[in-house]
Amino acid sequence: MRASAGKRRPAPGAARRAAVAERLAEHRLDALLVTALPNIRYLTGFTGSNAMLLVFPSGALLFTDPRYALQAPAEADCRVKISKRRILSDIAAALARRRVRRLGFERERMRFDVFDKLRSHLPLKSSLEPVDGWIERLRMIKSAEEIEAIRRSVETNSRAFDLASRHLQPGTTENDFAAEIEYRMRKLGAEGPAFETIVAAGARSALPHASPTAARMKPRDLVMVDMGAMERGYASDMTRMFYIGAPGPRVRRYYAAVLRAQQAAIAAVRPGVRASAVDRAARSVLQEAGLAKAFIHSTGHGLGLEIHEPPRLGRGESLLLEPGMTITIEPGIYIEGWGGIRIEDTVVVTADGCEVLTPTHKELRAI
Amino acid sequence: MRASAGKRRPAPGAARRAAVAERLAEHRLDALLVTALPNIRYLTGFTGSNAMLLVFPSGALLFTDPRYALQAPAEADCRVKISKRRILSDIAAALARRRVRRLGFERERMRFDVFDKLRSHLPLKSSLEPVDGWIERLRMIKSAEEIEAIRRSVETNSRAFDLASRHLQPGTTENDFAAEIEYRMRKLGAEGPAFETIVAAGARSALPHASPTAARMKPRDLVMVDMGAMERGYASDMTRMFYIGAPGPRVRRYYAAVLRAQQAAIAAVRPGVRASAVDRAARSVLQEAGLAKAFIHSTGHGLGLEIHEPPRLGRGESLLLEPGMTITIEPGIYIEGWGGIRIEDTVVVTADGCEVLTPTHKELRAI
Repeated sequence: MRASAGKRRPAPGAARRAAVAERLAEHRLDALLVTALPNIRYLTGFTGSNAMLLVFPSGALLFTDPRYALQAPAEADCRVKISKRRILSDIAAALARRRVRRLGFERERMRFDVFDKLRSHLPLKSSLEPVDGWIERLRMIKSAEEIEAIRRSVETNSRAFDLASRHLQPGTTENDFAAEIEYRMRKLGAEGPAFETIVAAGARSALPHASPTAARMKPRDLVMVDMGAMERGYASDMTRMFYIGAPGPRVRRYYAAVLRAQQAAIAAVRPGVRASAVDRAARSVLQEAGLAKAFIHSTGHGLGLEIHEPPRLGRGESLLLEPGMTITIEPGIYIEGWGGIRIEDTVVVTADGCEVLTPTHKELRAI
Repeated sequence: MRASAGKRRPAPGAARRAAVAERLAEHRLDALLVTALPNIRYLTGFTGSNAMLLVFPSGALLFTDPRYALQAPAEADCRVKISKRRILSDIAAALARRRVRRLGFERERMRFDVFDKLRSHLPLKSSLEPVDGWIERLRMIKSAEEIEAIRRSVETNSRAFDLASRHLQPGTTENDFAAEIEYRMRKLGAEGPAFETIVAAGARSALPHASPTAARMKPRDLVMVDMGAMERGYASDMTRMFYIGAPGPRVRRYYAAVLRAQQAAIAAVRPGVRASAVDRAARSVLQEAGLAKAFIHSTGHGLGLEIHEPPRLGRGESLLLEPGMTITIEPGIYIEGWGGIRIEDTVVVTADGCEVLTPTHKELRAI
């Protein structure tokens, strides 16, 4: 399996750019400037770290720098311009050549100074039109190929967890366990972790985003492990809990409540349901358990080319779930001085409900 | 040594914020809104992934979300506000309360939509004043403590390289060697790699920013390894080359030219020298060797809390080097179909020249 990990299937960029071209026509725009790298990857296949993309009603033009002179034409399924000066200068020249008057730009994905420079490069008659989440909305609904890529990333992540867990014992440091996890991910074919692996023991597990430290796991520690792989560009995300020793009644009661909340949220996932309803399903279980105040974040988020994508599964989110959305379900509780418990799976919305992609069992692991 | 890796010394944020306050007075600004996370870390010590900071002529106020309710007050040496709504709403309220009329913002470090929302939140009489690189300029000159942190990161990086290199042999995949490198970094105390580790074998070494693949190293491959650790928040950066087999005359000649270029650039580093002069030193050696066109990037960059920081050591860069700057020196050549050679050290500018922090030898490693 690993032998083919270096090869990339041609990106289905042309079809995706056609969907963008339709939006251009609807909004009477002459072109869209795409500045978010994951959006550029989605629309062209190019994976480099510096690029901008112009999408026209017909055709597209990718700009990058000379470091990618060989890689960009090999990866991208559109025309490529290697900029020897500032990319924005070449963008401006292309806009002038094509007589672009109304240019869309990604409002939430462009730095202020880039906007500023772009404006100064454009002729007075041209206008810059903010565009919100066009590509992100396309990206929300994953193709069958993308779901397979995410499934593979999820499986790598779970296998890495299983292999690393064999090394976990009282006295292991948070750092060492995180190192073991990320090593296993890479050896299994991942590019690396999709985010900084969280291993948080004892009272530190009450920090939802704790960086691993040199602290050793000691008896009566809850240990929170939140990990995800990035494989062929696609993310996975999972949280599991260990307990060092035999968990007492409070730990068991709280753990059971979080697990029920997580299962209730999963049971609520199906097409046509509001994102907020999934959040409410988890929240009401924790409320009944007297833990509502300890649940300080939303229930989940989309993931794909990025570890955090739309939709957000939180209060007030009116978006309706659709088949092909890949999301996390991750309620948690955080109690200062005591610790935290979170349980998280990666899930795909199907025609009539959802499939939990994460194969790893969800019992509390006593070490 | 690792036992203390989890502890953080108190950040010298107050003194750094005092330097910002001086700039506020010079520019008659009532406050600066800091949005770049590394700048926030530099000014407060806070390491979380979501925050904004207001610096006033006296005092500062850090805003973050409830996930960091425990961590932020523990890390930051200024007042902390945990926002239960959008952080920008709380920022706007604080600006109104303090009657801020002229607010500076980081032009190159703020998203356009954040600027847009901020403007809509402010009273009409207020103005938003772009500020470029104030904190980045402070950060260019490292304190003794920061140089020690970078030295430590460099040493971890070099030790990880040595340990991983023992596993390198013909047939090793790029992926597996990258995994081994990153594992060693973490086991030695790093938070992780400072950037995606590059291991590029054969013709792929001509891609300056190649992601590792499942390709196996085979006889007559040049293998480029570009790696850096992030340790206690500080980056290191090094590139070394392997050759599988006995290198022929062309490889040896080109390698020697790149090494001479790198040494010439290092010899040029001292206070008062222009950044462009260091670049020219490397470039003229490669020009004499007939390789000028194959050197397609600049000679180096600053590093610290970020892997790429000012100064840039390239053509036309008029900045004068100063003691305490930490920079990379990394000339390279890239020849399509043949391969690439780059040699890179991390260097600190001293009172009368520079110190090469990287302890790893620079001979071509034949495997």
